[in-house]
Amino acid sequence: MIRHTVAFRLKHPLGSAAEHDFLRAACALAKIEGVQKFECLRQTSGKNSFTFGLSMEFADEAAYFFYSGHPEHTAFVQQRWIPEVAEFMELDYVAYAP
Amino acid sequence: MIRHTVAFRLKHPLGSAAEHDFLRAACALAKIEGVQKFECLRQTSGKNSFTFGLSMEFADEAAYFFYSGHPEHTAFVQQRWIPEVAEFMELDYVAYAP
Repeated sequence: MIRHTVAFRLKHPLGSAAEHDFLRAACALAKIEGVQKFECLRQTSGKNSFTFGLSMEFADEAAYFFYSGHPEHTAFVQQRWIPEVAEFMELDYVAYAP
Repeated sequence: MIRHTVAFRLKHPLGSAAEHDFLRAACALAKIEGVQKFECLRQTSGKNSFTFGLSMEFADEAAYFFYSGHPEHTAFVQQRWIPEVAEFMELDYVAYAP
Protein backbone atom coordinates (compact mmCIF):
# COMPACT_ATOMS: atom_id res chain seq x y z
CA MET A 1 0.00 0.00 0.00
CA ILE A 2 1.21 3.45 -0.94
CA ARG A 3 -0.67 6.44 0.48
CA HIS A 4 -0.26 9.51 -1.71
CA THR A 5 -1.18 12.77 0.00
CA VAL A 6 -0.99 16.43 -0.87
CA ALA A 7 -1.64 19.41 1.38
CA PHE A 8 -2.40 22.63 -0.45
CA ARG A 9 -3.73 26.17 -0.39
CA LEU A 10 -5.73 27.63 -3.25
CA LYS A 11 -5.44 31.08 -4.75
CA HIS A 12 -9.25 31.37 -4.36
CA PRO A 13 -10.88 32.95 -1.30
CA LEU A 14 -11.95 30.48 1.38
CA GLY A 15 -15.56 29.43 0.84
CA SER A 16 -15.71 30.87 -2.69
CA ALA A 17 -17.50 29.28 -5.63
CA ALA A 18 -14.15 28.94 -7.38
CA GLU A 19 -12.78 26.97 -4.41
CA HIS A 20 -15.80 24.68 -4.47
CA ASP A 21 -15.47 24.13 -8.20
CA PHE A 22 -11.79 23.23 -7.87
CA LEU A 23 -12.43 20.74 -5.08
CA ARG A 24 -15.25 19.11 -7.01
CA ALA A 25 -12.92 18.69 -9.97
CA ALA A 26 -10.22 17.23 -7.70
CA CYS A 27 -12.71 14.68 -6.36
CA ALA A 28 -13.26 13.40 -9.89
CA LEU A 29 -9.72 11.98 -9.77
CA ALA A 30 -11.13 9.34 -7.43
CA LYS A 31 -12.62 7.48 -10.36
CA ILE A 32 -9.27 6.82 -12.06
CA GLU A 33 -8.57 3.09 -12.07
CA GLY A 34 -6.49 1.93 -9.13
CA VAL A 35 -7.30 4.87 -6.83
CA GLN A 36 -8.43 3.59 -3.41
CA LYS A 37 -9.67 5.34 -0.27
CA PHE A 38 -9.78 8.75 -1.94
CA GLU A 39 -10.39 11.49 0.62
CA CYS A 40 -10.98 15.21 0.30
CA LEU A 41 -9.86 16.86 3.53
CA ARG A 42 -9.74 20.20 5.24
CA GLN A 43 -6.38 21.00 6.90
CA THR A 44 -7.04 22.46 10.36
CA SER A 45 -3.68 22.84 12.09
CA GLY A 46 -2.52 26.42 12.60
CA LYS A 47 1.09 25.24 12.44
CA ASN A 48 1.16 25.39 8.63
CA SER A 49 -0.47 27.47 5.91
CA PHE A 50 -2.27 24.72 3.98
CA THR A 51 -6.08 24.68 4.00
CA PHE A 52 -7.01 21.46 2.18
CA GLY A 53 -5.67 18.01 1.54
CA LEU A 54 -6.20 15.03 -0.71
CA SER A 55 -5.32 11.48 0.28
CA MET A 56 -5.54 8.30 -1.76
CA GLU A 57 -4.04 4.85 -1.69
CA PHE A 58 -2.60 2.57 -4.35
CA ALA A 59 -1.99 -1.15 -4.13
CA ASP A 60 1.54 -0.81 -5.52
CA GLU A 61 3.91 1.41 -7.50
CA ALA A 62 2.44 0.27 -10.81
CA ALA A 63 -1.01 1.55 -9.80
CA TYR A 64 0.53 4.83 -8.59
CA PHE A 65 2.38 5.32 -11.88
CA PHE A 66 -0.78 4.48 -13.84
CA TYR A 67 -2.58 7.26 -11.95
CA SER A 68 0.27 9.77 -12.29
CA GLY A 69 0.41 9.33 -16.04
CA HIS A 70 -3.33 9.02 -16.63
CA PRO A 71 -4.64 11.67 -19.07
CA GLU A 72 -7.34 12.78 -16.62
CA HIS A 73 -4.71 13.38 -13.94
CA THR A 74 -2.23 15.15 -16.18
CA ALA A 75 -5.03 17.33 -17.63
CA PHE A 76 -6.18 18.24 -14.10
CA VAL A 77 -2.62 19.20 -13.15
CA GLN A 78 -2.18 21.42 -16.20
CA GLN A 79 -5.64 22.98 -16.37
CA ARG A 80 -6.58 23.30 -12.69
CA TRP A 81 -3.73 22.53 -10.25
CA ILE A 82 -0.97 24.70 -11.68
CA PRO A 83 -3.13 27.80 -12.30
CA GLU A 84 -5.24 27.59 -9.12
CA VAL A 85 -2.96 26.27 -6.35
CA ALA A 86 -0.89 28.80 -4.41
CA GLU A 87 1.32 26.31 -2.56
CA PHE A 88 1.40 22.60 -1.85
CA MET A 89 3.39 19.74 -0.35
CA GLU A 90 3.23 16.13 -1.42
CA LEU A 91 3.87 13.39 1.14
CA ASP A 92 3.78 9.69 0.27
CA TYR A 93 3.66 7.02 2.92
CA VAL A 94 4.11 3.29 3.26
CA ALA A 95 3.48 1.32 6.43
CA TYR A 96 6.51 0.86 8.66
CA ALA A 97 6.91 -1.38 11.70
CA PRO A 98 10.01 -0.40 13.67
CA MET B 1 -12.91 12.59 13.26
CA ILE B 2 -9.65 14.52 13.41
CA ARG B 3 -6.59 12.98 11.78
CA HIS B 4 -3.38 14.27 13.33
CA THR B 5 -0.28 13.66 11.24
CA VAL B 6 3.35 14.64 11.43
CA ALA B 7 6.04 14.14 8.82
CA PHE B 8 9.59 14.28 10.17
CA ARG B 9 13.28 13.60 9.68
CA LEU B 10 15.50 12.41 12.50
CA LYS B 11 19.00 13.55 13.33
CA HIS B 12 19.97 9.85 13.44
CA PRO B 13 21.39 8.03 10.41
CA LEU B 14 18.84 6.08 8.37
CA GLY B 15 18.63 2.51 9.59
CA SER B 16 20.55 3.21 12.79
CA ALA B 17 19.79 1.69 16.20
CA ALA B 18 19.04 5.21 17.50
CA GLU B 19 16.43 5.65 14.75
CA HIS B 20 14.83 2.34 15.62
CA ASP B 21 14.76 3.21 19.32
CA PHE B 22 13.10 6.56 18.63
CA LEU B 23 10.42 5.02 16.41
CA ARG B 24 9.67 2.33 18.97
CA ALA B 25 9.23 5.03 21.60
CA ALA B 26 6.95 6.99 19.27
CA CYS B 27 4.78 3.90 18.74
CA ALA B 28 4.16 3.75 22.48
CA LEU B 29 2.05 6.92 22.10
CA ALA B 30 -0.57 4.69 20.47
CA LYS B 31 -1.66 3.43 23.86
CA ILE B 32 -2.73 6.85 25.17
CA GLU B 33 -6.49 6.89 25.71
CA GLY B 34 -8.44 8.20 22.73
CA VAL B 35 -5.77 7.51 20.11
CA GLN B 36 -7.26 5.61 17.18
CA LYS B 37 -5.75 4.16 13.98
CA PHE B 38 -2.17 4.96 15.04
CA GLU B 39 0.24 4.41 12.17
CA CYS B 40 4.00 4.53 11.91
CA LEU B 41 4.92 5.36 8.33
CA ARG B 42 7.89 5.77 6.07
CA GLN B 43 7.77 8.86 3.84
CA THR B 44 8.82 7.90 0.32
CA SER B 45 8.27 10.93 -1.91
CA GLY B 46 11.44 12.57 -3.18
CA LYS B 47 9.60 15.90 -3.34
CA ASN B 48 10.27 16.66 0.34
CA SER B 49 13.00 15.91 2.86
CA PHE B 50 10.96 14.00 5.46
CA THR B 51 11.68 10.31 5.99
CA PHE B 52 9.00 9.17 8.45
CA GLY B 53 5.47 9.97 9.48
CA LEU B 54 3.01 9.32 12.26
CA SER B 55 -0.74 9.37 11.78
CA MET B 56 -3.50 8.96 14.34
CA GLU B 57 -7.15 9.79 14.65
CA PHE B 58 -9.28 11.25 17.43
CA ALA B 59 -13.04 11.16 17.75
CA ASP B 60 -13.21 14.88 18.55
CA GLU B 61 -11.24 17.90 19.78
CA ALA B 62 -11.59 16.84 23.41
CA ALA B 63 -9.81 13.55 22.68
CA TYR B 64 -7.10 15.40 20.73
CA PHE B 65 -6.53 17.84 23.59
CA PHE B 66 -6.44 14.99 26.10
CA TYR B 67 -3.65 13.40 24.03
CA SER B 68 -1.74 16.65 23.53
CA GLY B 69 -1.67 17.36 27.25
CA HIS B 70 -1.13 13.79 28.38
CA PRO B 71 2.04 13.40 30.50
CA GLU B 72 3.32 10.54 28.31
CA HIS B 73 2.99 12.74 25.22
CA THR B 74 4.54 15.85 26.76
CA ALA B 75 7.42 13.77 28.19
CA PHE B 76 8.02 12.21 24.76
CA VAL B 77 8.12 15.66 23.16
CA GLN B 78 10.60 17.01 25.68
CA GLN B 79 12.82 13.95 26.06
CA ARG B 80 12.80 12.46 22.57
CA TRP B 81 11.13 14.66 19.91
CA ILE B 82 12.90 17.98 20.55
CA PRO B 83 16.41 16.52 20.93
CA GLU B 84 16.20 13.89 18.16
CA VAL B 85 14.06 15.39 15.36
CA ALA B 86 15.83 17.51 12.74
CA GLU B 87 12.71 18.90 11.07
CA PHE B 88 9.00 18.21 11.00
CA MET B 89 5.61 19.37 9.74
CA GLU B 90 2.29 18.77 11.43
CA LEU B 91 -0.85 18.48 9.31
CA ASP B 92 -4.29 17.91 10.80
CA TYR B 93 -7.24 16.87 8.69
CA VAL B 94 -10.98 16.58 8.93
CA ALA B 95 -13.21 15.08 6.28
CA TYR B 96 -14.58 17.56 3.75
CA ALA B 97 -17.27 17.02 1.13
CA PRO B 98 -17.21 19.86 -1.41
